[in-house]
Amino acid sequence: MRVLCLAGGVGGAKLADGLQQILAPGELTVVVNTGDDLERHSLAICPDHDTVLYTLAGIADPTQGWGVAGETWQVMGQLGRLGAQTWFRLGDRDLATHLFRTERLRGGARPTEVALELARSLDVPSRILPMTDDAIRTRVRTTAGWLDFQDYFVRLHQEPDVLEVQFEGAEAASLTPEVRDAIRSAEAIVVAPSNPVVSIGPILAVPGLLAEIVAARGRGVPAIGVSGILGGKALRGPADRMMTSLGEEASALGVARRYAAAGLLDVFVLDRQDEDLSAGVRALGLEVVVTQTVMTDAGSRAALARDVLGAAAWAFAVAAEERLEGGNAPGGGSLQ
Amino acid sequence: MRVLCLAGGVGGAKLADGLQQILAPGELTVVVNTGDDLERHSLAICPDHDTVLYTLAGIADPTQGWGVAGETWQVMGQLGRLGAQTWFRLGDRDLATHLFRTERLRGGARPTEVALELARSLDVPSRILPMTDDAIRTRVRTTAGWLDFQDYFVRLHQEPDVLEVQFEGAEAASLTPEVRDAIRSAEAIVVAPSNPVVSIGPILAVPGLLAEIVAARGRGVPAIGVSGILGGKALRGPADRMMTSLGEEASALGVARRYAAAGLLDVFVLDRQDEDLSAGVRALGLEVVVTQTVMTDAGSRAALARDVLGAAAWAFAVAAEERLEGGNAPGGGSLQ
Repeated sequence: MRVLCLAGGVGGAKLADGLQQILAPGELTVVVNTGDDLERHSLAICPDHDTVLYTLAGIADPTQGWGVAGETWQVMGQLGRLGAQTWFRLGDRDLATHLFRTERLRGGARPTEVALELARSLDVPSRILPMTDDAIRTRVRTTAGWLDFQDYFVRLHQEPDVLEVQFEGAEAASLTPEVRDAIRSAEAIVVAPSNPVVSIGPILAVPGLLAEIVAARGRGVPAIGVSGILGGKALRGPADRMMTSLGEEASALGVARRYAAAGLLDVFVLDRQDEDLSAGVRALGLEVVVTQTVMTDAGSRAALARDVLGAAAWAFAVAAEERLEGGNAPGGGSLQ
Repeated sequence: MRVLCLAGGVGGAKLADGLQQILAPGELTVVVNTGDDLERHSLAICPDHDTVLYTLAGIADPTQGWGVAGETWQVMGQLGRLGAQTWFRLGDRDLATHLFRTERLRGGARPTEVALELARSLDVPSRILPMTDDAIRTRVRTTAGWLDFQDYFVRLHQEPDVLEVQFEGAEAASLTPEVRDAIRSAEAIVVAPSNPVVSIGPILAVPGLLAEIVAARGRGVPAIGVSGILGGKALRGPADRMMTSLGEEASALGVARRYAAAGLLDVFVLDRQDEDLSAGVRALGLEVVVTQTVMTDAGSRAALARDVLGAAAWAFAVAAEERLEGGNAPGGGSLQ
């Protein structure tokens, strides 16, 4: 089953890892957010891409979920001694990725080519595609003014409230042939439990990308989203506070509303603790699957991936039934 | 005593260290060769500068004489895993220097400013100045064709014979105000025992630099050179083979000839084992000092520096005497 997964950083990487575990090699394509990308120390850094890369390569730090396992910090230590700003910490092995990427980009390679090369070198059996080869930069208007994303996220520890989000450069960006082909050949589309505003948001801002997904759904390809907000709290990161300060509901229902409004999904996966939100999500026109969504180890990643793809098969069958029955909506169900 | 030292890599760094040991803080300025500079992994790398920097900062690797003591190689190991070329090996702490430099240069800083910042951060009491802020690249025509210097030096281990040397960009380069001021305020000029062709050669190719030294000599500032070729062999590197393949004599006399032809020196320092070359060097119009020139530890670096500055004082006295006596040449002597 060819699966396309839209992902941000840690949460997206975990579900992608679960999907990679249960799919055959080559069946998974992950489209990653590049809105957080930045230049530091003259290097091109792609935080979400690299988190997914290291996770799918099996070399991610197991406790923090990003960076390389067993990382060392010699370069950063010396950079500090030289008086450079070091709030954006880059480990030694991680730096090799940025050096490789920067050299290839300056030599004229496309970000997508470099991503494919990196994954190949690290024996990743899946494809990891930047959402676009063009520069899109997420900027946030906060109580501390307009900030570059990493300024807000890393330097200021997400302390200021986010009042507005902008994806600079999005209008001028193009869909890559690789992302287009991946959407067109997908048999299921998965939206990972990443931050809906600043991880999935920038991906959907790439002109033509959402339209391709909507077209795929029109052909019967099921699209399944998982909430990264459980019991009103983001598992990681500032998604909950961000949704509140943007005037949205900081809950799985709020996430579902965003995605439903965009026409992105067929099915929404709720965590057991959010089962009471099922009716609200169904009212948005989405099927609901309730399961355990917290991924604490390799097994729970694979389990969630199985539930998600099970939901995809189920949604596919429901859609087929609907077509047979002439469009009667099924009485939404709950997987298992 | 304000001393200006022209230096390449390891040999130059050692004598500079000796000079720094015996001079008061701030009295030493080292002008370093930038002809070997290169870009690797999108970083600006200045090998000779960094060897001098690390040596004068007291953090150079004590056995190899270049690179940082206790260096680690995490980044390079990972870069190799990613499929990057790694024949030009860069240690982790060393990389911090290149990252700092590259970021500052891309931000618009002059190489000279960056060099001053680096030295300040590492508490170096001397000034280390790039010979120019403009790009000069040493290229060598060899039995394997035209090569970039580091291609010849590192990748091919100096195996091809050098038939011609070119300092690309030299005609268009400018003397920096810092180098000009350092020459004009120097009370002695020292040419370190570096490769006369590819370390001192590029420095002298900077338009106006040699003329400033000649003018300083005209004002009575003594210029003292030390041979890096002893007993017909380069202490380190390919200087001897290079001089032979260029049709010059691979000996301290050959080195003296080069410098005398350029009008660079007053005094030439010969190692004891080359004492028999004294007459030949004197015949070039240079004073001769014979001493122990091999620097094996901090003490021998300081000892050679003392001999060199002693020779400077002596040359200065001789010149003053000559002026008093109406130009009678002194019967060359031997320091000690």
